[in-house]
Amino acid sequence: MIPRLAVIGVGLIGGSFALDLKRQGRVERVIGAGRSRASLERARELGLIDEIAANAVDAVREADLALLATPVGVIPALLREIAPHLPPACIVTDAGSTKQDVIAAARAALGDKIGQFVPAHPIAGAETSGPEAARAGLYQGKALILTPLPENRPEDVQTVANLWAACGARVARMDAAQHDQVFAAVSHLPHLAAFALVDDLAHRPTAEACFKYAGAGFRDFTRIAASSPEMWRDIALANRAALVGELDAYIAKLDEVRALVASGDAEALLNLFTRASDERRNWKGG
Amino acid sequence: MIPRLAVIGVGLIGGSFALDLKRQGRVERVIGAGRSRASLERARELGLIDEIAANAVDAVREADLALLATPVGVIPALLREIAPHLPPACIVTDAGSTKQDVIAAARAALGDKIGQFVPAHPIAGAETSGPEAARAGLYQGKALILTPLPENRPEDVQTVANLWAACGARVARMDAAQHDQVFAAVSHLPHLAAFALVDDLAHRPTAEACFKYAGAGFRDFTRIAASSPEMWRDIALANRAALVGELDAYIAKLDEVRALVASGDAEALLNLFTRASDERRNWKGG
Repeated sequence: MIPRLAVIGVGLIGGSFALDLKRQGRVERVIGAGRSRASLERARELGLIDEIAANAVDAVREADLALLATPVGVIPALLREIAPHLPPACIVTDAGSTKQDVIAAARAALGDKIGQFVPAHPIAGAETSGPEAARAGLYQGKALILTPLPENRPEDVQTVANLWAACGARVARMDAAQHDQVFAAVSHLPHLAAFALVDDLAHRPTAEACFKYAGAGFRDFTRIAASSPEMWRDIALANRAALVGELDAYIAKLDEVRALVASGDAEALLNLFTRASDERRNWKGG
Repeated sequence: MIPRLAVIGVGLIGGSFALDLKRQGRVERVIGAGRSRASLERARELGLIDEIAANAVDAVREADLALLATPVGVIPALLREIAPHLPPACIVTDAGSTKQDVIAAARAALGDKIGQFVPAHPIAGAETSGPEAARAGLYQGKALILTPLPENRPEDVQTVANLWAACGARVARMDAAQHDQVFAAVSHLPHLAAFALVDDLAHRPTAEACFKYAGAGFRDFTRIAASSPEMWRDIALANRAALVGELDAYIAKLDEVRALVASGDAEALLNLFTRASDERRNWKGG
């Protein structure tokens, strides 16, 4: 049982975490903080949090555990802000989509308190955001990646793991660099590719007919293009090196496909589509 | 009421069309033909068709209307095969995902019978295929594009439109060239982009971790990569010119995104993501 949980950024991710833990009886009191007073009021009305702190420092001052659930671009400033006021027994964890940059920011901001920071990433994004999007059960069956630091106390890492497990998440541990590489490929790249397709179509003379007749394939391919622009700007910048590598690999693959179409290479196209189709059909996550 | 409907290719598209028309009492008898005897037997067991013809010629010999619902690559040979045996009062229509090439093939094969051919395209693809995938209501609320020929009798075009409307489709008319351009952008390109991403990921050392931790964004972005490889090979070749143009435009847009990420241009990335996110959120089809 966590007596006081601070949630900084009470949106889809932070709000759903708080709601599940309250329902599971794993937390006694949830204190919310964030940039938008209106969002915090709504989060309290929705029962996601019990009280609103004036700022992040006030939220963590007496907290036993603090979740940073803001866009990753905000985390460095947030860590610098709370660092001097962090109680020695308070575990800080995050929900950032990138890990190496968040860890670097935490080391810079927290100094010798770095052991209190347990980096984490719940794989439960959605194209919706804000407290209205929060819901119980969001994390059920989803992966939660921990990228623990050598300085972490094993019992603190276990506390964070237990809370996410109580939300129904499948907790896994991974090296931060491997995390960033894998998610550049399976999450960050598809998001940028979806944004790119919609932006490409929207700026042409036939845009109206395109959007009018687009079907289910387009709908699903571009669902993630409705995601939060600010969140994805931050992720793109935070995981820049891995993401540029992924974009290069993907553009090279599209160049290959383009060459096969242009030359009418039926056999090579069939082979490529068959490999991809078999992989996708056999994927357990599908 | 159509006394005898011939369906050549009794899979998701042809099977669902036949099933809806039977349930609506719009057809008396459905004769199926196709390449796989096992699929045809299954289609008859499932009640999609009433009888199995030995071949396409036998299926259309006494038909009042024939739907060609095979992959587009098969349509030219199919038209050549049935042309000499086509009764003068039989309307032939298709469900091909590309229209200019199908029309060209129909002109070549049918000669002065070309007026009997009413080109059509139901926007109801799925990553599933075969008679097992057919279902009543597949076309409910979906678009059906007609690209009529100058040689068509208006009443024949209306007959085809009425049948699709009876299946619940929203019938629209479009120029064949515009059709191919629009669907290259909103359907053919996303399919190839999804195939490309899965193939790209599957061939790297980290493939196992990638597929293990991929979440909902990846799932939806790549759903269409499970589609029929043969069908998509045919579409890619049939709509080659428009598709190469779309691939070029998309690769150029991804190059632009890559440059913004590499240079860390936060403002331009936010602008691009915001435009795309606004478009996608406002899209009525979402």
